[in-house]
Amino acid sequence: MDLNAFFENISRKITPSESEKKKQELVAREVIESIQKKVKAKVLLVGSSARDTGLKGDRDLDLFVVFNKSEKIEEIVEKTRKALPKGEWVMHYAEHPYFKSKFKGFDVEVIPCFEIIKNEKLKSAVDRTPLHMKYLQERLSEKQRRDVRVLKKMLKTAGIYGAESEVSGFSGLVCEQLILNYRSLENLLENAKNWSPPVVIDIEKHYQKEEAVRKFESPFILVDAIDFNRNAGASVSETSLYKFITLSNAFLENPSLRFFFKKSEKKFKSKAKLKTITVKFKKPRVVEDILYPQLKKTEKFLKNQLEKDFQVLDSDSFYDDENAFIVFILNKLETENFRKLEGPPAGRWVEVKKFISKHKPFRKYVEGGRIVIFEERRVERAVDLIKRQLRARGVGSFLRKNILNAEVTERKGKEIEKFLSKSDFWL
Amino acid sequence: MDLNAFFENISRKITPSESEKKKQELVAREVIESIQKKVKAKVLLVGSSARDTGLKGDRDLDLFVVFNKSEKIEEIVEKTRKALPKGEWVMHYAEHPYFKSKFKGFDVEVIPCFEIIKNEKLKSAVDRTPLHMKYLQERLSEKQRRDVRVLKKMLKTAGIYGAESEVSGFSGLVCEQLILNYRSLENLLENAKNWSPPVVIDIEKHYQKEEAVRKFESPFILVDAIDFNRNAGASVSETSLYKFITLSNAFLENPSLRFFFKKSEKKFKSKAKLKTITVKFKKPRVVEDILYPQLKKTEKFLKNQLEKDFQVLDSDSFYDDENAFIVFILNKLETENFRKLEGPPAGRWVEVKKFISKHKPFRKYVEGGRIVIFEERRVERAVDLIKRQLRARGVGSFLRKNILNAEVTERKGKEIEKFLSKSDFWL
Repeated sequence: MDLNAFFENISRKITPSESEKKKQELVAREVIESIQKKVKAKVLLVGSSARDTGLKGDRDLDLFVVFNKSEKIEEIVEKTRKALPKGEWVMHYAEHPYFKSKFKGFDVEVIPCFEIIKNEKLKSAVDRTPLHMKYLQERLSEKQRRDVRVLKKMLKTAGIYGAESEVSGFSGLVCEQLILNYRSLENLLENAKNWSPPVVIDIEKHYQKEEAVRKFESPFILVDAIDFNRNAGASVSETSLYKFITLSNAFLENPSLRFFFKKSEKKFKSKAKLKTITVKFKKPRVVEDILYPQLKKTEKFLKNQLEKDFQVLDSDSFYDDENAFIVFILNKLETENFRKLEGPPAGRWVEVKKFISKHKPFRKYVEGGRIVIFEERRVERAVDLIKRQLRARGVGSFLRKNILNAEVTERKGKEIEKFLSKSDFWL
Repeated sequence: MDLNAFFENISRKITPSESEKKKQELVAREVIESIQKKVKAKVLLVGSSARDTGLKGDRDLDLFVVFNKSEKIEEIVEKTRKALPKGEWVMHYAEHPYFKSKFKGFDVEVIPCFEIIKNEKLKSAVDRTPLHMKYLQERLSEKQRRDVRVLKKMLKTAGIYGAESEVSGFSGLVCEQLILNYRSLENLLENAKNWSPPVVIDIEKHYQKEEAVRKFESPFILVDAIDFNRNAGASVSETSLYKFITLSNAFLENPSLRFFFKKSEKKFKSKAKLKTITVKFKKPRVVEDILYPQLKKTEKFLKNQLEKDFQVLDSDSFYDDENAFIVFILNKLETENFRKLEGPPAGRWVEVKKFISKHKPFRKYVEGGRIVIFEERRVERAVDLIKRQLRARGVGSFLRKNILNAEVTERKGKEIEKFLSKSDFWL
């Protein structure tokens, strides 16, 4: 199969149209001119929209306002704020303050930053973005930009596109550096199918492989082309990396449209009697950067509680516009009316006595160096165990209020169908 | 509490009566004289009966026929055979041939052996017995013999008396050497309660402790007083050792008759819903030295098979006059209609494909570096799994014929009640 022609075909379906690009350009220019009228700073359109590596339907416009290093951070933020065109701008903080607005149909971000040069110490984490812009803009050929778009679409379809912690996958910037390093998507996939983590990609050849592995301690190391102290691939989890490796194998073996355009999801209809517990509660009104880690933390806490009496075969947490969900697949839904426990080392007599008198077992014996007992207990359902734990300290503080009114159920609602039928389709 | 008086009281209940001893002596003398009429060899009464360390009701008489080292093993066996008094003598082989008979109410063993001296290389494993006899006979005081009897009774009641593999406990000889080393039962128990395995007891002070630990690699090392290359305590399992440690603690804390005279066993009557599988079959007609290891081997094999789909909470195997039993306590009696499996490393694409196409999973995904799948399966009961395995190669060859007609059941027969209520009573 002629993969180049195949990718060209995909590209036609996913590249923004000329009118889409035109519109984007106009909106960008409007914001840029508005700012430049009021502050003495370069304003750069960065990100995929600026480099022609975005996908059809992307609505992101990222603008950097680049100030001289002599100024203070509070000053440049304030100056930027005052220079924004009319609109509903909200100030956000990530590592750094920036402004965001739904502006004429686009998600516009305006980020004040300082000018730096390659590998220089940053005043702020965002300062390297203009350097990335310049680096990639100068090097990516038109065909490579096409390959970046096709790669992004492929990763999106596989659920591993994006650096955010929900995905822990490959960011747009990582995609561009990957294509640059391997020169083409075909060559990237041919290499990736044989990757054996830890993977080290070092475009500018700053390190020996072992050196990079030691320095970055990560399954996927992409030495940032403009800052060799940074692993641009740090967000890629081991799971996402192996998904990409298997995906590369599967695609090259049998290239087809399904790798880019997902079939509509089928209803979960296995005969398997999966036993599930769903915790469903109103989504707290906090930003997603906080909500997601809090959900994960709570999922992990509840999982640990369950694992004292149940096997947790799989778990997940997610949210939609209204509600948040934490789901568990368990080996059973209620405990037995007895339990086997291992006690203290048999040599510690005082502890042994305490243990036995606490548990009043109906079987008790020495086995090897330990005490083993069987004790009777009340049957407990997993839902009740979860309900009891909802006010525990392990629950994320931002969830606490809403989760107390959670619905905790063994029923399999349609919201968990996607989780139940979880399948990496290319396997 | 005056432990000496207490032990004296116990001793009165468990020491053979004068008439019992008299009878024993007469029978022993009859066998000895019969042999000595026909062969030129020393004949020694050995074992506990000879040293006054036996318990009431013991019916064992062990006689050694000691030949000069210049003779051949076949010769001394043949000479001994011809010299035996009239009776139903059966030749047995352990490490060494010997003769056994029910003779005038006693279990008489006649063992031909060679004369050796202390620490000398043996021609046969039994040759050291006369040396043990001499060593202990010369050293044990009357009170120490009493303590040996009391100790034996205590260990018997706790189920850890005997070197045979069913028990893996303390032999009579070990008991005698223990009392000799610690000078009294009270002192032995006071020491044992603080033992921290590996335990090294070296009456004749042949080794540094570390040296003995390295040489014998055993939780319980009792350097044989008459052969420093031998661990007389090798038969004591870690479990038996810790049972004795906890027993010593429990006894000293609250000495009472229950440590010597077991209360009659209560019927198992816990409310716990233990799920059991019993394999019951006609006991094969083989000697117990073979039967027991074969049972254990088969128990272990079936346990491993079960553990692919079930948790085995406890298991045991045993026999009575008629039948042999293998019993399991399981977490459940039938499998789910699905199962979660971990596949090959995600990087091995060919294996991954094979794995997926073999299992046809309804969930499949990459997790970390591995493939995880959920597949549907037929529900299987544990009894059926066991039945299928009864003709497998893992089943002990001597059991094979009878076990094919085994009754495999979830019912809890009275034969397994003792196992179900298994309890080290002193805990």
